[in-house]
Amino acid sequence: MATSKKPLILITNDDGVNALGITKLIESIAPLGKVVVVAPNRPRSGMSSAISCIDPIRVSLLKDEGDLTVYSCTGTPVDCVKIGFDRLLDRKPDLLVSGINHGSNAAIAVIYSGTVGAALEGCIIGIPSIAVSLTDHSPCADFSEAARIGKSVAEKVLQNGLPEGICLNLNVPNIPKVKSLKVSSQTPGRWVRELEEMKDPTGKSIFWLTGEFFNQDPANENSDEWALANGYAALVPLRIDMTAHDFIQKIKHWEE
Amino acid sequence: MATSKKPLILITNDDGVNALGITKLIESIAPLGKVVVVAPNRPRSGMSSAISCIDPIRVSLLKDEGDLTVYSCTGTPVDCVKIGFDRLLDRKPDLLVSGINHGSNAAIAVIYSGTVGAALEGCIIGIPSIAVSLTDHSPCADFSEAARIGKSVAEKVLQNGLPEGICLNLNVPNIPKVKSLKVSSQTPGRWVRELEEMKDPTGKSIFWLTGEFFNQDPANENSDEWALANGYAALVPLRIDMTAHDFIQKIKHWEE
Repeated sequence: MATSKKPLILITNDDGVNALGITKLIESIAPLGKVVVVAPNRPRSGMSSAISCIDPIRVSLLKDEGDLTVYSCTGTPVDCVKIGFDRLLDRKPDLLVSGINHGSNAAIAVIYSGTVGAALEGCIIGIPSIAVSLTDHSPCADFSEAARIGKSVAEKVLQNGLPEGICLNLNVPNIPKVKSLKVSSQTPGRWVRELEEMKDPTGKSIFWLTGEFFNQDPANENSDEWALANGYAALVPLRIDMTAHDFIQKIKHWEE
Repeated sequence: MATSKKPLILITNDDGVNALGITKLIESIAPLGKVVVVAPNRPRSGMSSAISCIDPIRVSLLKDEGDLTVYSCTGTPVDCVKIGFDRLLDRKPDLLVSGINHGSNAAIAVIYSGTVGAALEGCIIGIPSIAVSLTDHSPCADFSEAARIGKSVAEKVLQNGLPEGICLNLNVPNIPKVKSLKVSSQTPGRWVRELEEMKDPTGKSIFWLTGEFFNQDPANENSDEWALANGYAALVPLRIDMTAHDFIQKIKHWEE
């Protein structure tokens, strides 16, 4: 059996292996190489870079046809990337694409997103990695623009690679025709009014995460939220080194 | 009832409200102000910045005596911070301390750690925030040096504040006497050989996350792993803006 010369592409997401977003991503990426999907067996939104420290992880082969292999995994999105790289693939993938997420992962969502967490994990391993999200939470959203632009960015990354420690976060607005790609920065801001209180049937309080994004810099044309609000797909390069390097000197005198 | 003039300090962790590490942290921080603890009701290690998107969150008041109030929460470490700030406190805390974690959160662990996730969340809200970890996983580790140094850093942060968007990640080596604090950067590297395969009683494969840290830059005296290996407590300032700002220009020509 001859080894395929095609690029090896690992695909995952956080909405689960059966979500429409990942189905559309697989369709658009498949022409670019040999695709292996390792995705959660159920929705794992908001899992950030969580890993399974307490429970074991199981994997099931769902499909193995030609250049497409699909596994489901009981773990988090990051677990999917780890087990894909460590156990299911015979070499390091040339590309990782995570998504297409049902809902925006712009601004501070990079911190909470399982979709982005999987791309960060690919980056940690040394795989050129992209997270792709559509600003529409609907289970039957129209992913055509997001799939088209995601494929275009994937082709660029396959051609050019990415520097060590940097991955890409692509968000696509939910409009019929996106103007173009806009390379942007993470919008400063946070979620507010985040908890909604209800009573369970016994009268005890329960709280649901909800809320809305408060944009601290809405006029900043370089921010990803501005790009999305103005008809562009926002592409933000993210780094896995979270050190605030320029602040180190400011607290050097704390060393006793 | 007069309003307390004492600093209001929110404490959380990821090992759970009953862990020894948070108990020792509460003891050391209590003299600095009014302390409110909101911590997970069970171990939530490796939860990163995960949030509860699917399940509701419940809170229980465990203690309310003098200047110490303790809640347990069914959510993640980040959920604890959100519900503490949004629902349980009458004003924004002057300080958040997360820990003391049983085990190191140096280097790439910042990405996976629930302890650090909680400090990042405090930072997002605008609270000066510190994550504190001891490089010893034992449930009955000796937290005395970590508690002493954690308190010292907490005092400095209460005095000086922290800039918007920056929090602190403190790791303390498991030795009887730490040399001093060393302001450091996040060591580049990653975990390798991460998955151990076993069979469940029915003969099916299960995988456990394990492995070891591969340090890509072991000689770097400015890195947190070097500090810890050489008897120092490592203090790394982290930023919540993950944008790789200096890479933006390099891919500007991708905009069509």
